[in-house]
Amino acid sequence: MNEVILNVDVSPFVDALAAVVGEANVLTQLDDVAAYVQDWTSAYHSSALAVVRPKTTSEVSKIVGLCSAENIAIVPQGGRTGLCGGGVPINGQPSVVVSLTRMNAVRSFDVAGRTVVAEAGTVLEALHAEAENNDLIFPLVFGAKGSCTIGGNLATNAGGSNVLRYGNARELCLGVEAVMPDGTVINTMTGLRKDNTGYDLKDLLIGAEGTLGIITAAVFKLFPMPTARSTAFLSVGELDDAITVLNRLQDHTGGCVEAFEFMPKPAVDVICKVFPDIRTPLDTPAENGILVEVASSRPHDAKVMEDGSICLELEVMELLSVLMEEGVVLDAMLAQSEQQRADLWKMRESILEAITEAGPAYHLDISLPLSQIACFVGEMDAKMAKLGFQPLTVGHLGDGNLHYALSAAEGRDWEELPLDTAKEMVFTLLTELNGSFSAEHGIGQSKLDVMRKLKEATQIAVMRQIKTVLDPKNIMNPGKLIPTE
Amino acid sequence: MNEVILNVDVSPFVDALAAVVGEANVLTQLDDVAAYVQDWTSAYHSSALAVVRPKTTSEVSKIVGLCSAENIAIVPQGGRTGLCGGGVPINGQPSVVVSLTRMNAVRSFDVAGRTVVAEAGTVLEALHAEAENNDLIFPLVFGAKGSCTIGGNLATNAGGSNVLRYGNARELCLGVEAVMPDGTVINTMTGLRKDNTGYDLKDLLIGAEGTLGIITAAVFKLFPMPTARSTAFLSVGELDDAITVLNRLQDHTGGCVEAFEFMPKPAVDVICKVFPDIRTPLDTPAENGILVEVASSRPHDAKVMEDGSICLELEVMELLSVLMEEGVVLDAMLAQSEQQRADLWKMRESILEAITEAGPAYHLDISLPLSQIACFVGEMDAKMAKLGFQPLTVGHLGDGNLHYALSAAEGRDWEELPLDTAKEMVFTLLTELNGSFSAEHGIGQSKLDVMRKLKEATQIAVMRQIKTVLDPKNIMNPGKLIPTE
Repeated sequence: MNEVILNVDVSPFVDALAAVVGEANVLTQLDDVAAYVQDWTSAYHSSALAVVRPKTTSEVSKIVGLCSAENIAIVPQGGRTGLCGGGVPINGQPSVVVSLTRMNAVRSFDVAGRTVVAEAGTVLEALHAEAENNDLIFPLVFGAKGSCTIGGNLATNAGGSNVLRYGNARELCLGVEAVMPDGTVINTMTGLRKDNTGYDLKDLLIGAEGTLGIITAAVFKLFPMPTARSTAFLSVGELDDAITVLNRLQDHTGGCVEAFEFMPKPAVDVICKVFPDIRTPLDTPAENGILVEVASSRPHDAKVMEDGSICLELEVMELLSVLMEEGVVLDAMLAQSEQQRADLWKMRESILEAITEAGPAYHLDISLPLSQIACFVGEMDAKMAKLGFQPLTVGHLGDGNLHYALSAAEGRDWEELPLDTAKEMVFTLLTELNGSFSAEHGIGQSKLDVMRKLKEATQIAVMRQIKTVLDPKNIMNPGKLIPTE
Repeated sequence: MNEVILNVDVSPFVDALAAVVGEANVLTQLDDVAAYVQDWTSAYHSSALAVVRPKTTSEVSKIVGLCSAENIAIVPQGGRTGLCGGGVPINGQPSVVVSLTRMNAVRSFDVAGRTVVAEAGTVLEALHAEAENNDLIFPLVFGAKGSCTIGGNLATNAGGSNVLRYGNARELCLGVEAVMPDGTVINTMTGLRKDNTGYDLKDLLIGAEGTLGIITAAVFKLFPMPTARSTAFLSVGELDDAITVLNRLQDHTGGCVEAFEFMPKPAVDVICKVFPDIRTPLDTPAENGILVEVASSRPHDAKVMEDGSICLELEVMELLSVLMEEGVVLDAMLAQSEQQRADLWKMRESILEAITEAGPAYHLDISLPLSQIACFVGEMDAKMAKLGFQPLTVGHLGDGNLHYALSAAEGRDWEELPLDTAKEMVFTLLTELNGSFSAEHGIGQSKLDVMRKLKEATQIAVMRQIKTVLDPKNIMNPGKLIPTE
C-alpha cells in the first residue's frame, strides 16, 4: 500500500473499486503501481492510492463516481508517452490512476463513410494497422506511435509530421465519448461531418489533458492510402525561401505535401557525429536543409514513366528545376529508392536521440506564424550564440512548429550557461511575434509556469471558470494545464 | 422609443451607449430599429431598446459592460441571413442589438502564411474578393454570401457546398477575438496551425450563436486558387452507388472533389416546372442525380490537350467511363463550357426558390453518416408518400447533409396533411441512424424544441453549466441555442 495514505484506511474504497473492475484490475502494491506514476520523461515521480484498469465506459463512470464521493483525484492515463507530466499524479493529493489501456477495442469500421470508432486505450499503431487492413490510412503519426494511445493523443491534441496535410488529433476526430467529472457520460460520436447542435464539447475535451473529463472512445476520419510518393532533401539559401518552396510545392502538387521538415546544419552535424553511419544527403551540407515528402492516391501520379520514375516524382523534379534556376533552392537530392527514402527519415527521426546523447540541452516546442519563422530563428540563434548556447533546431516547418533545443556551444560548460536568461529571451521574442510556447506537447505540469506568465490572463480566467463549473471538486487530473491563481 | 420599456426611463442608458459609439450609431426610433429586429426568414418579430453599431472591439467591450450593469440582453448581429432566428431579440426581455456591420476592416493579410485577419462585420463576399486579389481563395460559400458577415458565419459555424473539401467555418478559422459576457476581451488570433496551450476557446465560441460572447474578429486560412475545373451531372442507380462514386472520385483525383450535390428527380422536376428555361441536363432524367465539381490548382491538371479539353477533365472522364461500364453510373453530362457549368449551378441554386414558389413546404436541415443516407431516404420517402407528402430533397451529399423538404403530394391539400406525425417520423429515424437534426443552420429559436427532445440530456446539462458560469446574468443572446429547463 502506498505511502500517501498510510494514515487512512482506504480498504473500503479499494474494495469498492474492485467491485467495479474486478480485483485483478486494481493495483495497490508499490511495485505494481510504480510504473504508472511516472512517464516516459522520468521527470515526475509521485504515488497513487491505486491504479484502476476499467474495460468499459460504464466502469469508468462508476470509478469516477466513487472517487468523486471520496474527493479523490483521478488521473486518466494512456501510454505514458506525454512530454509534460500530464499523465502522472501530482504529489500531495490522494490519487487514483485510471489506466485506459484495457479499453482498446475498435468498435466499428465504416468503409464507405471512411470513419472508425475506437476506444481510448487503442494504441496508435494498432489503429494504423486497422485502417491499412481496409486500404485506408489514419494519418496521425509520430515517434511514440507504438505505445501511445488514441485517448492520450486526443487529451493532448497530438500533432506530428503529417499535420500539414491532415491536421492534428482534433481535426482528425469527428466525435468523442467521455465521462464527465460527475460521472455522467456524453456521447458525440455520430461521426457526422456537419452537426450544428450546440456547443462544441468534443473540441473542449480534446486538448484539455483530462482535466474536464475522461475520453473513453472517439470516431476518426480516415483517408485514401497514397500510392505514389516523392521524398527529397533540399538546401535553401534563406529560411524565408523555404516558405516560398512550401507554397510553390503546395500549388504545384495541389496540396499533396505531407511533410516539410526543417533540418538546419547544426542539427544534422550532431546527428552525423552521434550516429557515424548516417551521412549527409548532399555533398555540400545545407545550411538550411528541408526534408520534404509529397504523396498522392491518384492513379495518374503513380504511373511509371519510361525511365522508371513515377509521374509524381517527375512533377516534383520539374518544379525543383525551376526553383533551382530561380536560386530559391540551392541543391536537392531526390530519394531514388525506398532505401534512400528510409535513410532520409531515419536521419530526421534520430535527432532527439542524437541531441540527448550529445549532452545536456533544454528543449522548446514552439510555433510561429510562417511569416515570422525566419525573423525568430535569425534573431534568436544570434542571441543564443552570444550567451554561449548552440541552438539545435528541427521542426515541422510547414506548421510553423519548431523544436528549438538549446545545447552548450563547443567548449562551453552547460552548468555555467545562463539558461534562465536564454528562456526569458526566447519567450519574449516568441510573444512579440505572436508565437506559442507549446505547439504540440501541451502544458501538463512542466509548462504551468510559462502558461501563467505568457497566456493571456483573460483566457486563463475563462478556462478556470469552465474548469470550476464542470469539476467543482477539482478531482479531474488536478494540478495540470491550468495554473493556480 | 420602443414599446417594451415605455414604462422605464432608458434615456440615461441610451446616452451612455451614445457616449461610446456616437449618437449616429445608436438607433432607438421604431422605424430605424425595425429592420434589425427581424431576419431574412421574417419568422420572428420582436423589439429592441436600441441598435448599437460599434466600430472597434473596445467599443463592443464597453457596450457589453453597460448592458451587463443594467441586466439588459445583448443580441450580436451580422447580416441577418440566419435561418433559425438566432440573430434577432426574443420577446419579453429588454434587448440591445449590437450590429457588427461597421466593424468590417480586413486588418491584415499574410500572403506567405496564407492567412487573413478580418473583423466580424466583413461581408463574406468582400473576403472572397480580398483573397482573390492575392491569387488565393477563401472557400466558404453559400447563397447568402453577398450579405452575410463572417462574424455570423462563425457564430453559426456556417457550411455550404465546399465543406467536403475545405471544411466548415470552424475548420477554416485559426483563431478569434471576442468580447466575453463580462466585457473582457480574449484574443486567440495568433494564426498558428499548432498551439496546445489550454482549452479550445475558439471552437467553444464558434457555433455558440453569440450566447457565450461576441466574436469581433477572426483569422482565417486561405487556399490556392484552382486553375482547372471539371463539372458534371451524373445519374446513378441507387443512392449507395453515389457514395461509391464519391469515394472513387476522391481517390482518382487525390481529394479534389469540391462539391457533390444530391439532386433527385422530384427536386429537379419542381425546378423545371417553376423555371421553364431550366432544362434537365440528361435526356433520360436521373432518378438520383448528382452535381459534381472537381477542381485543382495543379498546373498539370490545367494542361490543354489536343482536343481542347484539359487534363483534369480527361481524368474525370476516364473514371466515369469505368464507372459506367461497371453500371455504377448510368449516364453523365460533362460541362463543356463555362456556360454549361453555370447552367448546372444555376439549377442547383434555384431549388430553394423553386420549392418556395411551388407551394407550402416544411424544410429540414439534417445530416447522416454517409453509410446511412440510402437507408434514411429510402425508408422516409416511402413513409412520407403514404402520409400524402412529396419529399423534395437536395443536399450536400458529400457531407451527409440533406435539405429534406416536405411538400404536399400532387392533389393533396397541405393544410390537411399530418405534419406533426411526419416530423416525428423523420426525427425518430434520424435518431436511430445517428443523424443530426441541424446540420448547418444551427438552433437559434426555431429548433429549441427539437433540441430539448433529441439532444443527449447530459450534453445539454454541460452546455447549461458552461453558459451559466460564463454568462451568469444570462444577458448574452438569451433564449437561443440552449433549451430552458
